[in-house]
Amino acid sequence: MSRWIQSGDNQDLTNERKKGTFDTERMSAWIYGGQDVLNRRREILNFVKSVKDFNDPVPIEFMSREERVMNSARKVVSMTDNTDQIDGSDFFGEGMYYQALTMGRDLHAMSLHYVMFLPTLQGQTDDDQLDEWLGKAISRAVVGTYAQTELGHGTNLSKLETTATYDPKTEEFVLHSPTITAAKWWPGGLGKSSNHAVVVAQLYTKGEHKGPHPFIVQLRDENTHMPLKGIRMGDIGPKLGINGNDNGFTLFNQVRIPRKSLLMRYAKVEPDGTYVAPPHSKLGYGTMVFVRSIMIKDQATQLGAAATIATRYSAVRRQGEITPGAGEVQILDYQTQQNRVFPQLARAFAFLSAASEIRELYLTVTEQLTHGNTELLAELHVLSSGLKSIVSWDTAQGIEQCRLSCGGHGYSQASGFPEIYGYAVGGCTYEGENLVMLLQVARYVNIF
Amino acid sequence: MSRWIQSGDNQDLTNERKKGTFDTERMSAWIYGGQDVLNRRREILNFVKSVKDFNDPVPIEFMSREERVMNSARKVVSMTDNTDQIDGSDFFGEGMYYQALTMGRDLHAMSLHYVMFLPTLQGQTDDDQLDEWLGKAISRAVVGTYAQTELGHGTNLSKLETTATYDPKTEEFVLHSPTITAAKWWPGGLGKSSNHAVVVAQLYTKGEHKGPHPFIVQLRDENTHMPLKGIRMGDIGPKLGINGNDNGFTLFNQVRIPRKSLLMRYAKVEPDGTYVAPPHSKLGYGTMVFVRSIMIKDQATQLGAAATIATRYSAVRRQGEITPGAGEVQILDYQTQQNRVFPQLARAFAFLSAASEIRELYLTVTEQLTHGNTELLAELHVLSSGLKSIVSWDTAQGIEQCRLSCGGHGYSQASGFPEIYGYAVGGCTYEGENLVMLLQVARYVNIF
Repeated sequence: MSRWIQSGDNQDLTNERKKGTFDTERMSAWIYGGQDVLNRRREILNFVKSVKDFNDPVPIEFMSREERVMNSARKVVSMTDNTDQIDGSDFFGEGMYYQALTMGRDLHAMSLHYVMFLPTLQGQTDDDQLDEWLGKAISRAVVGTYAQTELGHGTNLSKLETTATYDPKTEEFVLHSPTITAAKWWPGGLGKSSNHAVVVAQLYTKGEHKGPHPFIVQLRDENTHMPLKGIRMGDIGPKLGINGNDNGFTLFNQVRIPRKSLLMRYAKVEPDGTYVAPPHSKLGYGTMVFVRSIMIKDQATQLGAAATIATRYSAVRRQGEITPGAGEVQILDYQTQQNRVFPQLARAFAFLSAASEIRELYLTVTEQLTHGNTELLAELHVLSSGLKSIVSWDTAQGIEQCRLSCGGHGYSQASGFPEIYGYAVGGCTYEGENLVMLLQVARYVNIF
Repeated sequence: MSRWIQSGDNQDLTNERKKGTFDTERMSAWIYGGQDVLNRRREILNFVKSVKDFNDPVPIEFMSREERVMNSARKVVSMTDNTDQIDGSDFFGEGMYYQALTMGRDLHAMSLHYVMFLPTLQGQTDDDQLDEWLGKAISRAVVGTYAQTELGHGTNLSKLETTATYDPKTEEFVLHSPTITAAKWWPGGLGKSSNHAVVVAQLYTKGEHKGPHPFIVQLRDENTHMPLKGIRMGDIGPKLGINGNDNGFTLFNQVRIPRKSLLMRYAKVEPDGTYVAPPHSKLGYGTMVFVRSIMIKDQATQLGAAATIATRYSAVRRQGEITPGAGEVQILDYQTQQNRVFPQLARAFAFLSAASEIRELYLTVTEQLTHGNTELLAELHVLSSGLKSIVSWDTAQGIEQCRLSCGGHGYSQASGFPEIYGYAVGGCTYEGENLVMLLQVARYVNIF
């Protein structure tokens, strides 16, 4: 029943696999969403295995920060040179899988280019802007990121300090960071790689404040890769995880950008400075939920990886002789070990199911919205917020229990656990800080 | 009341400090164990600040594994060249503090030399051996570690596979690792730094097995620093934390060592191979408890550091405007933030008190043991096991809550949290894996 049984494997592991009462192939197909998808994943896996450029010269844990970023940049070029191997229209399916195989959990210099920069161009530009930028961005002539959060401002978008003041005399915006807390802070790929960014700034025109708007801004010279005049920027350094991605900062000192830098699909500024407000739209709301359903699936996968490592280790590791002379027993046979590891395996499956459910609900709500029906919108928001919080925290805790169940070996980077934890636990903070999300759920439940 | 109030500080922080209702100097004295100790700590702090050699050329998080180990080796030489600045007889007081200031949480190539190698020589050698080795070890002519755990064996000492078989013809022991799982695995400083080790191996003489015993073994040539003939060894690589310490592995292929390599304070082997058993002793028992009381204090300190960072951040960080126009509020004023951070601060103090209590009990029991009174011994063991488990897990959880309370910034290495967590969480595994320790407590409570 198990396609993983191979001769030459550790005998304890083979014995455990022989005891399995389910078909591992059917289970794999269920996890990936069908046999066809599973087959395609295997094709991608085999392709990635065949490309020598995807190998790391030494394990990345042995590299310095600089070496790690360079290695990541080298690999991401190979990865993007080979995108014809995957179905480009299925970014969150084949694309994410392909990226995970080539770049691992350390992510890379172009993570934000694909996840935020390109989608923002596609969603926020007018037709002229799309013509100007999309081709360059897809061909990597322009590598971009999304610069919204500031050193002093995360959740409260209305208090962003960076300003973009329109000057009708030159038909330019003047981009400025009035304080140190106005520094754009955290954008992935901003540290060393991006030469462009979508910058979110407070728009001022004709002396009036019009709130935060997105602008496309060139940051570095395309030839020398040095910051342009008036732009101060750099790397914010190593993190708990995801160190192949060069998160960075940037400050603007009266930087002039053309009027057409404002992404004008919805809001517009006319040459004379007249502001044209966007039509009311609630459709952006759904995208966040979609990202959360992807994220819950990703968290489930990380917990599943940790539980797999811990379970296999527990089958192979023998410690403690219960019956004298009978030899040491597999630690998998201790109830305490089972109670520590197996619930994590069960959670991984439960979270995978939850991710499917929320995605189905998202599709239903999106369909309803096209008919002006907003009935399920609030419920969708609150369900995805609550699930994201519970799943990410349980995942973080579960990975740590799996790690601890491997004793000292779990502390070694070679076990994979430190990397899995460092990557997954970020999910407790991004896409909405967990406590803030849970407060939103509580508020909704009270109103309901 | 607060000695930390300084002009030029962030005004929010100063305002919070002014609200304090207790004397921070008295609190500091209580934490360190008296005003005299506090004063001495400050002298040591000022000395460490004055030594340029103790600085890192770049933050260690930016270094490669190799650079990190080299930097650590360089600093530990400066540290040990300056030990006259501290009271050498107070290793677990001034010594640990001095080491923490110079080497940080990353530890160093000689950590095990001081914590395990030297104390083992002092405790397990006979008088001749002490004369031969102690001077060399103190002068660093010999740098050693303690090699007990094996790749396949941690908690179950009786199943260690490395053998030391006595050959009366040459008056030598033959040290051998029969399998790959017999590889000594994890000893700190073994990877690159140590040229000697205390190796724990199963003693065989006259065809009889006498159980695990400690041997002092030269591993590397003192001039070339290359492994000696028959010895295979190296670095086991990066870990979740403590990466300035080069944990390593070693395998022995029929390595011959002199009879006097057996540390003979208690057990002996005569030249003809006659084994002399050690007199029964339970005094070694207490040492483990002593180490645990040190460890509980250390854990409390790590949690206190995390809570301090989170509390200060929460005072300075403003986010969310509750009353329109009133400006953003300090996040310290949100009840959810208080409920997240303050319990960690309270726990740090509770754990410090618990560490003092267990140390007092240890001193009482040690005194009683000298009169043959073992009445409190089992209770001491179970209290220290239980406390160690609860404190280390609550500390790990508490550090993570503090980190998450700082939002995205907590994910940056610059916050200190990833390092504090990586260092402290090791305590859930070392000095007795927490679940195993809790099972021992449960067994005792049932019997009681």
